[in-house]
Formats: sequence, structure tokens, C-alpha cells
Amino acid sequence: MMEYGQGTGEFENWIVSETAFSSGHLGKCEAIMSLGNGYMGMRSATEEPYIKEQRNWFVNGTFNKAQPNEVAELPNLADITQIGIHIDGERFSLEYGETENYVRQLNLKTAELSRSFDWISPRGKKIRFHFKRFVSLAERHLTAARVEIESLSHPVEISFSSGINAQMTNSGIQHFLEGERRVIDKKMIQLVQTTNESNVDVVINTTHNIKLNGEEPAADPEMDMARRKVWLSCEFTLQPSDRLEIEKITSVHTSRDLEAMEAEYDLQQLRESSLGDLKLHALHGYAPLFEAHRQAWKQKVWDACKLEIDSANAFDQLAVRFALYHLTVMAPVHDARMGIGAKGLSGEGYKGHSFWDTEVFILPFFIYSNPEAAKSLLVYRYLGLAGARAKAAANGYSGAMYPWEMAWPADGEVTPVWGDIDIVTGKQSRIWSGAIEQHISADIAFAVYQYHEVTKDQQFLDQYGYEIVFDTAVFWASRLEWNGKKGCYEITGVIGPDEYKEHVANNAFTNYMAYFNLKLAVRYCEKLMKENRELFEKLAGPLELAAAYPDWVEKAEKLFLPKPRNEDQVIPQDDTYLQLEEIDLAKYKNQGKVRTIYRDYNSEQINLFQVTKQADALILLYLLEQTFLHEDPRISTAVKRASFRYYEPKTLHDSSLSLVTHAILASDIGETDLAYSLFRKSAEIDLGPLMNTSDEGIHAASIGGIWKAAVFGFAGVRLIDGRLRIDPKLPKHWRSMAFTIQWQGQPVGITVTPTRLSVNLQSEEALEFETNNAVYECTGFIEVPLN
Amino acid sequence: MMEYGQGTGEFENWIVSETAFSSGHLGKCEAIMSLGNGYMGMRSATEEPYIKEQRNWFVNGTFNKAQPNEVAELPNLADITQIGIHIDGERFSLEYGETENYVRQLNLKTAELSRSFDWISPRGKKIRFHFKRFVSLAERHLTAARVEIESLSHPVEISFSSGINAQMTNSGIQHFLEGERRVIDKKMIQLVQTTNESNVDVVINTTHNIKLNGEEPAADPEMDMARRKVWLSCEFTLQPSDRLEIEKITSVHTSRDLEAMEAEYDLQQLRESSLGDLKLHALHGYAPLFEAHRQAWKQKVWDACKLEIDSANAFDQLAVRFALYHLTVMAPVHDARMGIGAKGLSGEGYKGHSFWDTEVFILPFFIYSNPEAAKSLLVYRYLGLAGARAKAAANGYSGAMYPWEMAWPADGEVTPVWGDIDIVTGKQSRIWSGAIEQHISADIAFAVYQYHEVTKDQQFLDQYGYEIVFDTAVFWASRLEWNGKKGCYEITGVIGPDEYKEHVANNAFTNYMAYFNLKLAVRYCEKLMKENRELFEKLAGPLELAAAYPDWVEKAEKLFLPKPRNEDQVIPQDDTYLQLEEIDLAKYKNQGKVRTIYRDYNSEQINLFQVTKQADALILLYLLEQTFLHEDPRISTAVKRASFRYYEPKTLHDSSLSLVTHAILASDIGETDLAYSLFRKSAEIDLGPLMNTSDEGIHAASIGGIWKAAVFGFAGVRLIDGRLRIDPKLPKHWRSMAFTIQWQGQPVGITVTPTRLSVNLQSEEALEFETNNAVYECTGFIEVPLN
Repeated sequence: MMEYGQGTGEFENWIVSETAFSSGHLGKCEAIMSLGNGYMGMRSATEEPYIKEQRNWFVNGTFNKAQPNEVAELPNLADITQIGIHIDGERFSLEYGETENYVRQLNLKTAELSRSFDWISPRGKKIRFHFKRFVSLAERHLTAARVEIESLSHPVEISFSSGINAQMTNSGIQHFLEGERRVIDKKMIQLVQTTNESNVDVVINTTHNIKLNGEEPAADPEMDMARRKVWLSCEFTLQPSDRLEIEKITSVHTSRDLEAMEAEYDLQQLRESSLGDLKLHALHGYAPLFEAHRQAWKQKVWDACKLEIDSANAFDQLAVRFALYHLTVMAPVHDARMGIGAKGLSGEGYKGHSFWDTEVFILPFFIYSNPEAAKSLLVYRYLGLAGARAKAAANGYSGAMYPWEMAWPADGEVTPVWGDIDIVTGKQSRIWSGAIEQHISADIAFAVYQYHEVTKDQQFLDQYGYEIVFDTAVFWASRLEWNGKKGCYEITGVIGPDEYKEHVANNAFTNYMAYFNLKLAVRYCEKLMKENRELFEKLAGPLELAAAYPDWVEKAEKLFLPKPRNEDQVIPQDDTYLQLEEIDLAKYKNQGKVRTIYRDYNSEQINLFQVTKQADALILLYLLEQTFLHEDPRISTAVKRASFRYYEPKTLHDSSLSLVTHAILASDIGETDLAYSLFRKSAEIDLGPLMNTSDEGIHAASIGGIWKAAVFGFAGVRLIDGRLRIDPKLPKHWRSMAFTIQWQGQPVGITVTPTRLSVNLQSEEALEFETNNAVYECTGFIEVPLN
Repeated sequence: MMEYGQGTGEFENWIVSETAFSSGHLGKCEAIMSLGNGYMGMRSATEEPYIKEQRNWFVNGTFNKAQPNEVAELPNLADITQIGIHIDGERFSLEYGETENYVRQLNLKTAELSRSFDWISPRGKKIRFHFKRFVSLAERHLTAARVEIESLSHPVEISFSSGINAQMTNSGIQHFLEGERRVIDKKMIQLVQTTNESNVDVVINTTHNIKLNGEEPAADPEMDMARRKVWLSCEFTLQPSDRLEIEKITSVHTSRDLEAMEAEYDLQQLRESSLGDLKLHALHGYAPLFEAHRQAWKQKVWDACKLEIDSANAFDQLAVRFALYHLTVMAPVHDARMGIGAKGLSGEGYKGHSFWDTEVFILPFFIYSNPEAAKSLLVYRYLGLAGARAKAAANGYSGAMYPWEMAWPADGEVTPVWGDIDIVTGKQSRIWSGAIEQHISADIAFAVYQYHEVTKDQQFLDQYGYEIVFDTAVFWASRLEWNGKKGCYEITGVIGPDEYKEHVANNAFTNYMAYFNLKLAVRYCEKLMKENRELFEKLAGPLELAAAYPDWVEKAEKLFLPKPRNEDQVIPQDDTYLQLEEIDLAKYKNQGKVRTIYRDYNSEQINLFQVTKQADALILLYLLEQTFLHEDPRISTAVKRASFRYYEPKTLHDSSLSLVTHAILASDIGETDLAYSLFRKSAEIDLGPLMNTSDEGIHAASIGGIWKAAVFGFAGVRLIDGRLRIDPKLPKHWRSMAFTIQWQGQPVGITVTPTRLSVNLQSEEALEFETNNAVYECTGFIEVPLN
């Protein structure tokens, strides 16, 4: 059972708590309390094992394709989190005996996981347990755990075993060769393994500090090995009030680490140096390592990108902190060769692959909060150009056709081909996204545009951005299909954001985004010719800009862009959607479970109904408003409202990406109560009380969306053709909202109350922004009264 | 907790029972109650899952080497045994609630596993469970399970899920490519997978018959897939006295099946035909399939090879039936391309590999009870000649040097190189057996000799046996080392049966067995020249017999054979053993755990002590007595007694192969009480009350040894230079012993009481045998009074 109000004092609205343990609902806290630092992510499985646990530990970027018919995925590392505890010879488990004062907490401020309880064994002995764990933000190769066990009532025999277990798999897939294991000084353990296809070496070192009442025990632990396992074990008799303390400090290094790229890589040397480093760290023990970690969170995260909400519902403040926590934990800001997985590093779901989720749902937070990190994520896409070009070529197109799912940049397209069961045929369903969900290329171009407009980072554009935008435009130009009868270009046979409609023609989102991509390339090309002739010449050759530029102009001009219907202002999602059969969706909508429609229909059948998985036309109305659509009077609030009212009832929100877009749109059309309710639902996808929503990992896009809904929705921050608009519409529960964004190189402090908007600039450079159709110029500090 | 006396009436001394369940001791019953038919073996894990379970299902011969640095092993198939049961939304487990009338039984007579109990859920609802399962001996591709659930007290919500789970690994090693899964008719499931290296296709079909109070439920089950999993699930409300019955009939076929060799193999056709076959079987349901299976056990096993013991300890009768049960279950008598693994098919231990265990400990039962099966096991070794020749060549020798561990015949040597932890270095220990435990080649030659002497199967000798014996002799001739100083041939740098002595010189067992092998080749060569010139000519060329024969004669003549010491008649185990330091072994001997000496010393240190893992010199004194040693007056009972008394106190019995040899030797030297006590200990290794001895699987050699200790030990049956000796020494607890052996083509019924030996021949051919130095000739029936 989840609780949200346990934090007090300096930790008020910083603590996520589980106050009752259920071995039937492990996935929830494993995922939402998962730890990480962008380099590694660790699911928060309990020390003692349970049947339904999912014990995951990933290092970002270590992708491996274990078998020829699989796709590359992040391999689940050997486990160091399980600690076997036996009490009086019986395996300790919260499934037996009685548990009192149970609480498991993730402290978002300190990024520490803790769990404590008193346990009365089946024999009636009372024992106090206290577990702590963190993944260091100060030293990215490091993680530490601490166990305290105290006998409260009787003498008890306690034995524990702890080591490294390399029998772990990704749901049955083994990524690692057996490797080598050894015990050093009867205390430290080293495991060296290599992935079987990508040849990534992984070196794990772990060490144990054991103290009984503050003293190191006299006897050495026993050492054991079994297949792919190595562990130490100890036995103690605890008298009442005796206290056993075990600290386990662990490091992981890989041959994919940035350090391995920078220095001459040598496995033997890495083995020795990593072991030496760990010995030093272990000298200090848990407490000082934790203190350095806590300081890093303060400086790098909480001081740098605060978002304070004073709400009648304290949950709202917790939710945005939860979002900032996970956005930090999931993002490999240290290494541009790595992206953000759809589940972050919190589970095996989606195999660590990056989707459009990054650019459309997660990147905005980094663009406005941590531009360096945003740049790193976009360089990741730049490094993916070779794979995108290969995909285009393989599909008979030119330019860069980005993978729907991307892993290691060189891997190219890694979308699996087979998915869940087809209810009709009894076979696995075909997943078409890798082949025909093509808007991703334009989404990435849009992200380049957005990053550049917000940061004015010309160097990025020169070095990476132009090439991405030009080559995706080349792709679209080759992709468009000429329809002689209609006298326009079309895009047929695609999937839009609504994946319940496969093989559709002229999906509005796809067509408009392709149009945007082409127009952006035209604009960038003209800019480049004007501003940097040298770079233009350099790019013009390989990208054949001389031929491409007029092609873009002509094709953008003649690309079919579906307009709102005259009768009701609804944007048609695609050529056929509005003519499809409508069915009663009550059985599938808002029932607490997603994708239940597949219990009754297969994809081919669902394709024939007016049923939508997630925001499709609606995301277009939000996303491109910031660029050109606001120029078109028909794309007005009326169009947004009409489309919202048409599509929302047909939308099952069967993707976690859906609610946040609806929340922003509801805010835009003035339905602030609805917007708030959608924001809450969106924030509750992972953090809320439902115990089965996060089993495969947190929903990274939805978590990015919490920040988006707050800042873009309620605070009304938008980028409109290079200008900043701040047009707040606070929900009635919110008394104030204060946050900082980075705008073109300077931090901008924004505070919103129901009646006032305050903008605070630290520098003296002027900032022009608009709200409620009035334009304000600000140097220093300005307050705007809101009506 | 194990019980042995629960069988009554026709099942008296046929039932092995567990009468209290402990989730901390699962391995015991999983292994000793494992099911099989030689084609497949299935560990008896419970339907509901537990943390420490080991869920294994193997098809013999499907060896695969999953990774380049591993050795080939039997892959653990996708699981069909787990059935998830939820009661009122909570996972059913015997770890919660209360359990009454619990009993799990293996009925040895019917080879059926059953488990029944009443379970009171944590909410106080009483539910009766009854599970049954068998692996068909009548139809080797088939296994069936049945679940009955009855609500006794309240209405309960029951849901169950059942399917095929291909996430299974061998302790983390995945052998199978993902393959294809599908559901047929919302009822049957088919999984097709292929091993990743050996390219063995495995087709598993399963089907569910579900009945509520005898009626098929109206609603279809739900179908689901996850990674490498596919399953059906159903929900029911059971009113008090409602009864839910689930039958799950499953088949497995592989491209390594004999049928696939005989017909043109086509995977698509196998998929269809196997599915069709299963549909037919499923029509009948559990009961008639079980009846056919029960009949097969009666006819093929219990009527064919009975061994009746009337003992004051009923356990003794149960133990020999347990042995006959497992000998049947483990032996792939249908296919000569397959051998018997050291753990049968009951666990991952030893990876399904065949050792000398087969020839020395298991084969004797088949030679005397089922010569066809014995022949199949020896043909397996014949098929291994290519691998044995390759091993000899790789080691710089000639002829056939058999693998210490053998898997698929063509695989050659598959002994792993690295084992348990080295207590001193903290690294994995080097396993030397694959390189230098060389007696296996002579053990196989001895088995050919024994088989031929007992069966007089000349065709076998012509087709397979001569070649094995000649080519192993060629190996030994190339292996012997000339010691100019001593003027003899030696064998240095080997491991004998006592694996606690590595790199020793002139291990008595190895030297004598090599000598036997050379002499047997000489004898067979002379026999062949005399009796079958044509075959001789055929073999002479490839095996270079013209040169080999005189070489064998000369080298056998000059091979150093360690003689008993003059002062005490003790056979030196090797050149140095008797001079090594003696240490106090009390801490390691008879403490209920094996290999504990490794807690204090590593192999190099143990090598320097007079400590023995298992019978070494003693097995020589028993094994070769039957051939030539009895001609040497020094190898007499006195030598046996002296060596027994010297070595036994230094022997830790850290291999399950040890006790049975000691039991036979104790019997030979007249210490019948000691012999009986050792027999009991040997029989208890798997069957006894200790709950942790069989975790990695049953001890196949020890189980073969139960039969050996009874027939060769207490009944005193021996093959002495082609003649049968029957010289019984019944333990005082035994009132009579009756069994049948096959002797040179005819069944011989033997009954022993403390005072009489009765021999009963069904044919009228004469049988000459000796007992207590008197020779008897028997046609029909004879009784001999014993002193």
C-alpha cells in the first residue's frame, strides 16, 4: 500500500512510502523506487527473494543481441542485491511470521531507498531489520547497501549469504559468457563477464564489511561457488539487543564506459584498477559515500532545476519531484552515445530502446532545464544517422529514416517484429512500427529545432543539427508519394501515434510533421547559405543540397495537409478514420487496465473501428502550435476543442503517452478542472495507488509528461516561432507554482499565483515574452497581473 | 519428512512418501520422485512455484553447447509442470495458511506421482487439492498431469493459469532460440524451438481439459503471451463441494528422435503430426493413458526383472524397487546414440554426461537383467569411438582414449575445465579428470568383456566389441611410458578413481585395468584369428592389428603392476600414497555432508595427505577378481581384508560411488553386518531421510550399486573367468531373497535363504555354477544347502 505524506520537516513532500508489504505486488515499488544515476539503473527488488520478483540491474549502452533472431537489448547484469538471510535455519521472508512497523521509502531528495520493520518469526522471536541502498550520483560506478539486524526478544541464529549471482537473465535470455569469478581476501568478490555478441566486458567488484556490535567478527566467512555464482556466508548468534551490520559496497565498470574510450583500454588493467578503487571506497564505508551522493543530488538536481508547487493536494508537489527524480535517474547525460529507454533503466520492458518518447515527452524538460543534457541526447540521434541512413536504404528511400526503436547508435532499427498473442489466430501478432511508424524522423528534426530555438546553441546546429534536419528532409522527400489524381503528395501505409490504426493514408500528425521537417530544412538551408557559407559548402556535397533544396520546397508546397472538417472543425486523423464504425468502448475505457480490447479483437479488427490508443491528431494540435499552426486561423482554440471532444471519448489512453497531451490540450481549451484531473491521472500512472501499473518499469515519457503538463500546461510556457509565451492557467487547487527555465542561455525564474505572473532574470539581458496577448519586455524582474 | 511404510496391500513396499512439506527442502523429492521413461526425464517440482525449486525437464540426447566456452549439456526444456493457482486473488502456496493430511507419494509400481492435502487459506477457507502426474512408459513422447480442487467449506474464487514457459534455463544458460508459439482452438498450445548450436528442434504440444463438476465450462480461457511464454487462464467460483478438474496432456518430440532418423525429417510435418497425435491422446484423457502406462511398467519392468527381499527392515525391499524404478527411468534403451547421465534425467548435475559410472555401476544390472538394454549402452560407446580417437590424437596418443565425460557421441570429451572454489586462491579450481583420469577406456573394455561373457552375444562382439577392445588397447600401448631404470612400463601423471590424488604414478587400479585391456585385446585377437578370419582381415587393416598384437603382448608383459606390500598385504594405491602424511579426518568423515575437506584445504594440499575420496584400490580388488586376480594367490581374502582395513578409515566416501564397493568388499571378507550397514547407507544416499542429498539429481551409480550390493554382494553372484559363481552371504535381517538373472540367453531364477540356495532354469540347457567351492550342474531346478 502506497502513502505519499510521510515526509516531515526538510523531507515534507519528498518521501514515497509503501506501508504494507504484499509479495503479490512487487513490481510497483521495484520500478517506481528504482535507483540510478544515468550510468546504471537498479530495480529495487528486496534483499530477500520472492517468487514474483524482477531483479534487474543495467548499465546504459551495454546493448547486446544474444541470439540471431532477437534484437539488441540492455542485458540484465549479474545480481548483487539479493542477500539470503536465514533465521534459526529457516529462510527469512515477509510471507511468514508477522511484520510490524513495516515501511519502505524512497527519499527523492537524497535518492536513498530504505526499508525497516520488526519481524516476529514463526517461532515467536522478534527481530528488527533495517535496509538501505543507493546508487551514487557522485561516483557513477558505485552502489552501496547496508543491512542492520537486531534481535529484540530472544537469542537467534542468523546466517546470511551474499555475493554475485550471474545466473540472471533477461526473462530467460542469457547475454553473458560465463567469465571469471574470484574471491579476494575472503571478503571481496570480482566477476568479469563479456556479452556474447557485442563483446562488452563488464567488471563487477563487491566487498563486504561485517560488524557485530561494532566489531569485526573473528571467523572468516565461508566462500562458495556454483554455476555462475560466487558468494560468502556467515553465521552468528544474536543475543537480545545485539546488532549485526553488513555493508556491501559494489562497483561496476564496462568496456563501453567513456573512460574506456578515452584511455587505452585493457581488461586486465581495468580489473586491477577497479578493484583498487573499490578497496579505497570500502575503507570509508556506507556513510561518507552516501553523504557525497546526497550532496551531488542537492547540487546537480535540486538546486539546479527546482519546480515548487503549493497545492491543496500535497501529492502534486511530490509528483513533480518524483518526475525530476526519475528524469535524473534515467538520463545518461555523461555519454552522448546513449539514449533514454522507454522504461528508463527500471525494467526489462522495451529492452532499453529509445522511441519518439525521448524527443516529444522527455527532451523538453532537459531543453528548458539542463541544455547540456539535452544536447547529449540529440547528439545520440546524430550518432544514429548511419543507422537511419541504412534503414532508409533498406526500405528503398534516401536520407535518414530513423529507427522506430534505437539502441546502440550503430545498431540501427531494433524494433522487434513479433508481439503479443493474436486473439483470432492464436499466434504472435506482427509489430509493424519498425517498418511503418515513420513520424519519428520528423519528431527528431522538431527536437533539433526546439533545442536550438530555446538555447540558441549555434555550435550544436553547425556540428550536428543541420545534418539531422537536412537528411531527414531528404528522407521525407524520397518518401512522399505523388497522387496524380489529387495533384498532391501523400503518405500512405503508415502508423501514426495512434497504433490502433495500421497501414493508414495521410495520418495528419505524420503529414504535418513531414511538412514541418521539409520546411525546417528549407529554412535552415537558407540560413546556412546566408550565415556560414563554408559549412554550407562542406555539407552541400555529401548531402546533395543543391538538388535537395528545390525538391524540399516543391514537395512541402504540394504535400497534402488534412484540414479541419468544415462542418465541425475536427481534424481528420487520417483518410478513413472518420468513416469507420463506432463501437461501445465502455468495457475498455478507464477500467484500470490497458489494452483489454485485445481480449476481444485482434489488430485487424481494431483497425476497422473508431478507437484510438493515444493522442494522435491532438498531439499535432499541441506540438505544432508552437511553430506555424498558430498562423492559420482555423487552427484555433475552436479546432482544438472540437478535436478534443471528438477524439477523447474514442481514445482508450492505452499508452502512457496519451494523458499528458490531453492534459495540456484541456488546459489550452480552458477546461482547467479537466486538465488537472488528467494531470493527476497522468502522475498516478506510476506513482499512484494502483499496484500493477509499473511491473515492466516506470513510464519514462509519462514522467517527462508530468513536468510538461505542469510547465507547458498550467504555467502555459510555450515556444512560439522563436518567442517565449507564458500564459498561465493554474488549477484551482494550486496556490502558487515557482520554477526556473533556461532561455537562450540565461536562467529565468517564473512564479505563478492565481492572480500574478512574476518573471525573474538573473542577467541584465532583455527577455521579451507574451501573456494574454500583451507583450512584455523584462530585464531583471517583472510582475504581470493575470485576469 | 520421508516415510517408507505407507504402501499397503498390493502396494506394500512400493510407496515412497513425503508426509510433511518444507519449502526449504524441495530438491529431495524433486529428484528422488522424478519421473521418466528413458526418452525424457522430469523433475518432480510442485505445480505451485517456490523460491528454491528446480524445475527440470530433459529429453535424452538433445545435447547443446550454448556458448563457445561451455561444454555440451542436456538443455532444460520449456516448462509445462508449473500451474499457477490463485485463491480469492492470492497466490496459492503451502508456505501460507495451514495444511492438513499432506502427503506426496511416488508409487514405484505404477510410476505415478501424487500429492494431496487439505489447505486452509489465510482467510480460513478449506480446500482439497489432489495432484497426479506421470511420464508414460507406454508412449514415450507423452506426459500427463491431473489436478482436482474441491472447496470444502466456503465459496472460493479460483483462478489458474497454465501453459508453456520457455524462459527456463540451465542455471542461467539459455539453450534455445526463441522459436514459435501458438494457441490452437483456445485449448492447445504448441511451442517449437531449436537449440542454438546443435540445431535440435523441439516440438512441445500441450492441451487442457477443464471440467467443473464434470461439465466443460462455458467460457473460453483467456490466452496470453509474454516473452518466451504462452498460457491460458480461467477463473471459477467454487461453491462448497464443487469440484474443479484440470487435465493437462503434453507431448514432446525432437529432431533427434529415432523416428526423425528413420523417416525423412520435416519440421512442419512433425508439428502437424505431433499435434494430431496429441489431439487423439487428449480425447481419452488421463485415466486410460495412465492405465496403458501402468501396464507397460508391469510388463517391461516388474514382471521382467523382479528382486524380492524378505527383510526384517521393509526399507530394503523398497530400496531395491526404488533402484529398479530409477534404472528404468534413466536408461534410454530405445536409442543406442544415448547414454546414461550421472544424475540420470533428474537434475542439471553433471549436465547429462556419461562417466565410468555407467560401465562399472549401472551396466551390470542391465547385463544380468536386460541384455538388449545393456547392448544399447555399449553401442553408445562404440559410437563414441570417433570422439575417443580424436581425444587420443589431440593428446598425442594412438587408438581410442575415451572421454572422461561423454555427451552426444560425436562431441568427444566434454569434461568442464573449471570447478568449485579454491579455498586458497579464491579462484575456480582446475578440473583435471578430462585430461588425466584415463581408466575409463579400460573400464569400457571391461564392460564389453563382462557383457559378452554373461550373454555370449557373439554378434555384438563382431559388430562392436572387438573394435572397442582393440582400439582401447592401441591407446594403452601408446600411453605406457618406459622406465629404463626399473625395466618396466609405467603410467604416470594420472588420476585414479580416488580423485583426491591428482597427477599420481602407477595408480594400481589404472595399471591393472590397462593390463586387463591389453590382455583382453590379445585374447580377442587370437580368438578372432581362429574363429572369424574374414572379420579379422577386415579389422586388421584399419586397426593395424599385425603390428598392434605383438605390441600388446610385450607391453602387458612388462607393465608394472603394484603388488601387495609384503609386511601387511596392502595394495599400494599408487607410488606415493602410502608415504603421505596422515591427518585426523574425524571432522570430514561420516558428518552427513560430503567434500567438507575443501573448506579447509585446496586440491594441492589434499594431494599431500593419506585421504581418499572413494574406493580406489578396493574397487580393483572387487572388479578384477572376476577375471584374473583370483588366479594370484596373493589377491586373496587376506589382501582384501588388509586393504579394506587400511583404506576405509582414510576414505571420506565423498563420492556416492564409494559405499557400494565397500559393501561388496565387506561381504567378501565375511563382515556381513558391516556389509549390511554399508548397503543401507548406500541405499539411503537418495532414498534416506536426509533432505539435502539429492538436490542436483539422483545418484545414478549409487542406485545401480544398490542392485549390485544385493546381487553381487549378498547373493554372491560373480562372473569368474566365464563361469557363474553364486556364493550367498545373506545379512541376518534377510529371511530370503529371490531374483532372476539372464545367463547366456536363459533366465535363471535364484532364491536364497539363510540355509538354502535354489536355482531355477526355465530351459533345459545345463548351467554349471559353483558355490562354496563345490561345483553344481543344474538343468531345471536345484537346491544347494549353505553352511
